[in-house]
Amino acid sequence: MDNTFFVEHHTPNAGILMRVKNTLHKEKSRFQDIEIIDTYEFGRVLLLDGKVMLTERDEYIYHEMLIQPAMVCHPSPKNIVVIGGGDGFAVREILKYDIDTVSLVEIDERVLTVSREIFGCSWLEDPRVRVYYKDGTEWIKHRDGIDIIFIDSIDPEGVALSLVGSPFLKRCKQSLSVDGIFVAQSESPFYHKKFIKNYLKRLNSVFTIVKLYIAPIPTYPGGIWSFVFASHTVTPTSIHRDPPPSLRFYTPEIHGASFSLPKEFKEFLYE
Amino acid sequence: MDNTFFVEHHTPNAGILMRVKNTLHKEKSRFQDIEIIDTYEFGRVLLLDGKVMLTERDEYIYHEMLIQPAMVCHPSPKNIVVIGGGDGFAVREILKYDIDTVSLVEIDERVLTVSREIFGCSWLEDPRVRVYYKDGTEWIKHRDGIDIIFIDSIDPEGVALSLVGSPFLKRCKQSLSVDGIFVAQSESPFYHKKFIKNYLKRLNSVFTIVKLYIAPIPTYPGGIWSFVFASHTVTPTSIHRDPPPSLRFYTPEIHGASFSLPKEFKEFLYE
Repeated sequence: MDNTFFVEHHTPNAGILMRVKNTLHKEKSRFQDIEIIDTYEFGRVLLLDGKVMLTERDEYIYHEMLIQPAMVCHPSPKNIVVIGGGDGFAVREILKYDIDTVSLVEIDERVLTVSREIFGCSWLEDPRVRVYYKDGTEWIKHRDGIDIIFIDSIDPEGVALSLVGSPFLKRCKQSLSVDGIFVAQSESPFYHKKFIKNYLKRLNSVFTIVKLYIAPIPTYPGGIWSFVFASHTVTPTSIHRDPPPSLRFYTPEIHGASFSLPKEFKEFLYE
Repeated sequence: MDNTFFVEHHTPNAGILMRVKNTLHKEKSRFQDIEIIDTYEFGRVLLLDGKVMLTERDEYIYHEMLIQPAMVCHPSPKNIVVIGGGDGFAVREILKYDIDTVSLVEIDERVLTVSREIFGCSWLEDPRVRVYYKDGTEWIKHRDGIDIIFIDSIDPEGVALSLVGSPFLKRCKQSLSVDGIFVAQSESPFYHKKFIKNYLKRLNSVFTIVKLYIAPIPTYPGGIWSFVFASHTVTPTSIHRDPPPSLRFYTPEIHGASFSLPKEFKEFLYE
């Protein structure tokens, strides 16, 4: 048994560890450190700047909960955009629906190239997929008529900071169709309460409907993660279609439950 | 900053780490290693045989979710029993209601003594509390008319193994009043799926109504934990009273949401 452990510190004082079989890839791209390790407990794990982006064992929870709620609530989701999501897994979830196009807008070409090499991601060959290696805040400026925008980004710092700012949120609103939905990963309800509260304030100044929902993700900080669902007209309670049968985590019942927030956390967000 | 870390391996290949300020207590009792450490991230942490039983930062989630659902669903909860729970925190939640007695049945006197010394647990002075230093499987044999039995035990191995076996479950059924409810912590839906499935089978052969529910607990294995709610007559959807205002996690909405299980996990349990 190998005695090498990968450690991610979620704060200076707490973190997780995973026993490592070996390192499959390691490089410094123009934007970040990209590493894929193989672990005994969680399978292959994509790390960006030393943080777990996905593990083979529990990525389905994150990706289904990021993508499925908006896909079942939009009256007719045809043109979809993913900003970030360079590992390609969010696109897999979207392609389970009868859509026209999904645009993957990833700033770091190397993330997608390495993910394809190691995880396969054969679904990216689907003719409905369009890949852009661009800064999402620039790319979005020239677009309109988008049905759903998904923000599948790294933590809001460095290159990703502008993805949570008001100018970008306003631009997303303009780029969405009337029934459009904006969904973003929004960090850990356990460790990043203040960020979430401020992010919701900014979203509320741009969108009419803004709701937070949560899901348990064992390898993410605190074991629980949050997402925002924002729209002009579409509420997350209006479910228009059945989810695809291939899902592993998401059900309509889980959909409803995920919008129930713990008492103290909810009071903190809306006080 | 201290550079000592406590590590708990949830499996040989994965675990959590916490930076330690200092060790407040350490002993080997007749039954187990008892240790309380002070940590930077989670406050004081009770460890039994090296496993996190509670941390000051997130214990409220575990204890509210263990206790509150049954307390609001029972038509008239007066005589309550906690088996295990030697740290005393489960009793704190029960005393928020207008009950007659709560019996705390803990096999290891040292756990309660050390918890009182370090955590205070002033609520244990309440005259409604009765403490028994007994094996729960023996103690329960001479009792009847109990309204709710809570099993707040360590993992089902060693001395706690008999608490999940059919003879004990049948005895609990006999000791409960007609409207009685049996609630137990039932391990991690991420790491202990097979245990949970087998435990539900045994419960189903004893009780008419058996439902599993889940809650996110950051310092427990997988960051998510399960509980069973079992009864002859009382369903977990029939809520009889408002929860006490002092709660931090539980709400009636969370109550409902906690019974929604992830798709694949639910299929595994009930296939």
